Amino acid sequence: MTKLLFDLLNTNSVSGNESPMTEFLIDYIRKRKDTWKVQPEVFFGDKLHDCLLLKFGIPKGAVFAHIDTIGFSTRYENQLLAIGGPEIEEGTRLVGEDSLGPISCKIILDDDLIFHDFPRAIDRGTLLSFEQSIIMDDEYIQAAYLDNRLGIYNCLKLCEELENGWIVFSTYEEHGGGSVPFLIRFIQEVAPITFALISDITWITEGVQHHQGVAISLRDKYIPRKRFLEKILGLANESGIPYQIEVEGSGGSDGREIQFSPYPIDWCFIGAAEDNVHTPYEKVSLKDLQNMIDLYKYLMKRL
Amino acid sequence: MTKLLFDLLNTNSVSGNESPMTEFLIDYIRKRKDTWKVQPEVFFGDKLHDCLLLKFGIPKGAVFAHIDTIGFSTRYENQLLAIGGPEIEEGTRLVGEDSLGPISCKIILDDDLIFHDFPRAIDRGTLLSFEQSIIMDDEYIQAAYLDNRLGIYNCLKLCEELENGWIVFSTYEEHGGGSVPFLIRFIQEVAPITFALISDITWITEGVQHHQGVAISLRDKYIPRKRFLEKILGLANESGIPYQIEVEGSGGSDGREIQFSPYPIDWCFIGAAEDNVHTPYEKVSLKDLQNMIDLYKYLMKRL
Amino acid sequence: MTKLLFDLLNTNSVSGNESPMTEFLIDYIRKRKDTWKVQPEVFFGDKLHDCLLLKFGIPKGAVFAHIDTIGFSTRYENQLLAIGGPEIEEGTRLVGEDSLGPISCKIILDDDLIFHDFPRAIDRGTLLSFEQSIIMDDEYIQAAYLDNRLGIYNCLKLCEELENGWIVFSTYEEHGGGSVPFLIRFIQEVAPITFALISDITWITEGVQHHQGVAISLRDKYIPRKRFLEKILGLANESGIPYQIEVEGSGGSDGREIQFSPYPIDWCFIGAAEDNVHTPYEKVSLKDLQNMIDLYKYLMKRL
Repeated sequence: MTKLLFDLLNTNSVSGNESPMTEFLIDYIRKRKDTWKVQPEVFFGDKLHDCLLLKFGIPKGAVFAHIDTIGFSTRYENQLLAIGGPEIEEGTRLVGEDSLGPISCKIILDDDLIFHDFPRAIDRGTLLSFEQSIIMDDEYIQAAYLDNRLGIYNCLKLCEELENGWIVFSTYEEHGGGSVPFLIRFIQEVAPITFALISDITWITEGVQHHQGVAISLRDKYIPRKRFLEKILGLANESGIPYQIEVEGSGGSDGREIQFSPYPIDWCFIGAAEDNVHTPYEKVSLKDLQNMIDLYKYLMKRL
Repeated sequence: MTKLLFDLLNTNSVSGNESPMTEFLIDYIRKRKDTWKVQPEVFFGDKLHDCLLLKFGIPKGAVFAHIDTIGFSTRYENQLLAIGGPEIEEGTRLVGEDSLGPISCKIILDDDLIFHDFPRAIDRGTLLSFEQSIIMDDEYIQAAYLDNRLGIYNCLKLCEELENGWIVFSTYEEHGGGSVPFLIRFIQEVAPITFALISDITWITEGVQHHQGVAISLRDKYIPRKRFLEKILGLANESGIPYQIEVEGSGGSDGREIQFSPYPIDWCFIGAAEDNVHTPYEKVSLKDLQNMIDLYKYLMKRL
Repeated sequence: MTKLLFDLLNTNSVSGNESPMTEFLIDYIRKRKDTWKVQPEVFFGDKLHDCLLLKFGIPKGAVFAHIDTIGFSTRYENQLLAIGGPEIEEGTRLVGEDSLGPISCKIILDDDLIFHDFPRAIDRGTLLSFEQSIIMDDEYIQAAYLDNRLGIYNCLKLCEELENGWIVFSTYEEHGGGSVPFLIRFIQEVAPITFALISDITWITEGVQHHQGVAISLRDKYIPRKRFLEKILGLANESGIPYQIEVEGSGGSDGREIQFSPYPIDWCFIGAAEDNVHTPYEKVSLKDLQNMIDLYKYLMKRL
């Protein structure tokens, strides 16, 4: 487990430049799929931009995990622009690379503007990520980008046993979306689905706590169909796997673009919760992560 | 008239759980369609989620009425989250049902948060509606959810005489939408259209008054194509039916998702105006409602 | 050059009523296309609303130029509502026409509301434009609606030499969009593309200056795919044509709707920059405009 998780966490793929993660996944899948119960069809390449899909058996549903992360673009005069919604704190260390070589710098705040302290100008439009630092003990993992490296990890564990279903690695989720519309169209043309589960990481709140189980979200900014939620909750109860019910008024996921797609596809966000959302030190309970993996395996057999 | 209208007003269907209204409509259509001039094809079921479509003759256009309503979701610690944009007032009575039985409670406001006063915890994610209270006299009807029970009512009256056209009952309109994209795709595949009328309720303002006729909206947040608006206004003038021209800079309807659909479909919002928008005591002139019904019948024969 | 540019600048086409520009373009194309290197197929008419497409040869990509402009709608009691995001200044002169004849009036500001000073009531929903005033010298052109008459002009110059590619004239770009989804679907059905260039006008900022070359935008509110941006920059370097790299955190274009379309199509905004954005006195360097035309010709041969 640890090696795969660390490899995922050490691969940069800010929205707009997800190809390093796509390449990692292509390589991982090539090496490991022989050990999986069912051999999937693998779809990727220029016609899917930097996305990747796996089709196992005869799918009724799909699991979506976004492979992009939040980050920053360099602008003019040492200014930075956010990509997605990173937590912006003075002194946070960022890394990247431009035409002159590798970059490691810190965030400086001045009024409402964000700057870097790199001693030379950085090429305009260079993408920077949080510097990675992984801490893991018996109870927790803490790192940058648990959102959504853990969602990807969940999918790769699911691949080991999945018999029927799509696994979909999407891009741009952190920055407004844009790949799910063409992924959905592709799926509906190749092997259509009636539901989607969103394998992503949510927030610790007064209602969702560490070690209390994977969160099943009944709503965020958008509201899934009650009939589908009831089916999920029925199966979750039957499974005996610990879970928590989440109800939020804001936030979104790839579920948003499924809701607004031109196909009637039910969706539900299911994922472990994290502290310190969108910082370099996101923190997730390993028990919740295991519950997430177990629940996905249980649901994808029965939905 | 009164019975149908009261039945519609007494059926709950908050966004995300529209199936009670769908079931009411299926039953009503089954019982009444023999008395209609033309027998429609009726489309509903899991592949259309909780939506319902009627195809009369050879359609050139469609009339859309949303069947969902605004409301509230329960969160944690007696907190409520809005669904759509309800007017939130201390003391407003809400009703619903969870696993332990029926619920009737009041809204309590505290800072920016909304709470309920129900003596026990309510299941997370339970959907609550305004308690219904209908007052009707010779001039006005006052009730919760005139928006959009009157739009549905208008469609059902239109069904009695409609020869060619789609009647479309959509979901999720109050909460960002999401059904119109797949409804439009379904329509364009089965019997394509070039225009849509939005059968919905708008606002009393300095420019749109009770008893002055149905409102024809030339814009809200979005702007229909001038060429289509002129056609509508020409026919409205010719009809002799009282109408008022509305021009707004905000607000939206199912028209928004038609505007952004991948098909070139003209659209226009036409509906009676209400006082006390999104409260439990919305109020509409019965004369304006009758003008709305008359204008839809006139337009759907001629557009 | 001057006549075509002045004709474009003197044609009104506020979002929602783009047909005067469509008619101008149909007429221009009919008269001039015999002099073009390749004869395009021309698509327009009610099934495309007020849009217009030209297909040259066997397209791999498309160039999009929006033909609508910002403006105002009249509301009630001499009030005006913005269309798109015009700069609103007391005294700005507006022109239009309603059922009683031509209109010329001035903007009056009162608190947060905008009024006109026309001595009679104007028909509700009448569309008003900035009064046009064109100033041109050796270095600059200044006028209302350079955004996006220059983008259209660029496309018409490109038509003279284009061998393979779509030229697409879109509507509604200034007011939230809505035509690109059906244009993209049309294109993908007739002769599909893998990339789109957005022929539009951007902003003078601390990083993008007059006379320094056409701006290639690496991001606005949305972020194109890095792999495609690198291809563009590679060709731009090779071309020797002066260009500037733009990096913005806000703003959008037809690229937004391409990003969210159900097709995997790369996009990039390339255009000259203007001062006094969305005022009646937008100002662009003629040298930057020439660089824009040259770069489009270079790229469309090689992408």
